[in-house]
Amino acid sequence: MARVVVSVMPKPEILDPQGKAVHGALPRLGFTGVSDVRQGKRFELEVAEVTDAVLAEVEKMAETLLSNPVIENFTVTVEDQQS
Amino acid sequence: MARVVVSVMPKPEILDPQGKAVHGALPRLGFTGVSDVRQGKRFELEVAEVTDAVLAEVEKMAETLLSNPVIENFTVTVEDQQS
Repeated sequence: MARVVVSVMPKPEILDPQGKAVHGALPRLGFTGVSDVRQGKRFELEVAEVTDAVLAEVEKMAETLLSNPVIENFTVTVEDQQS
Repeated sequence: MARVVVSVMPKPEILDPQGKAVHGALPRLGFTGVSDVRQGKRFELEVAEVTDAVLAEVEKMAETLLSNPVIENFTVTVEDQQS
């Protein structure tokens, strides 16, 4: 079994109200030093093995189901390979 | 500037309806070979520089604001260090 991670983040030019809310809450909680926060989604997909075909399929999933390509960017990474 | 990433995922023993919904949608879209999906959150925090003190503070933010430690685990990673 292996785990493929799809990270979906709002594009830089897109407003991110969730991230803004978190950023606004930090000073109220006594945290300083963070100049920006953006919030996105993380999907962990369990697959039998990581091959180029599987990664291509995950890429297509990310494009069609997991992200909205108009407002979001995504990256696909292989996290760990357990046997 | 550097980017610190906080990944928040539901604990393994916690039901994850969002992940289940994604997992259920995959076969309908013609995707096979994914045995499980879990969905969590990803926060990208911009900080001036990455020091042990900053990382400790981010760890505390993750614990108190970004995650619910009863049902979620989080990990803190340093993504990239731009000068």
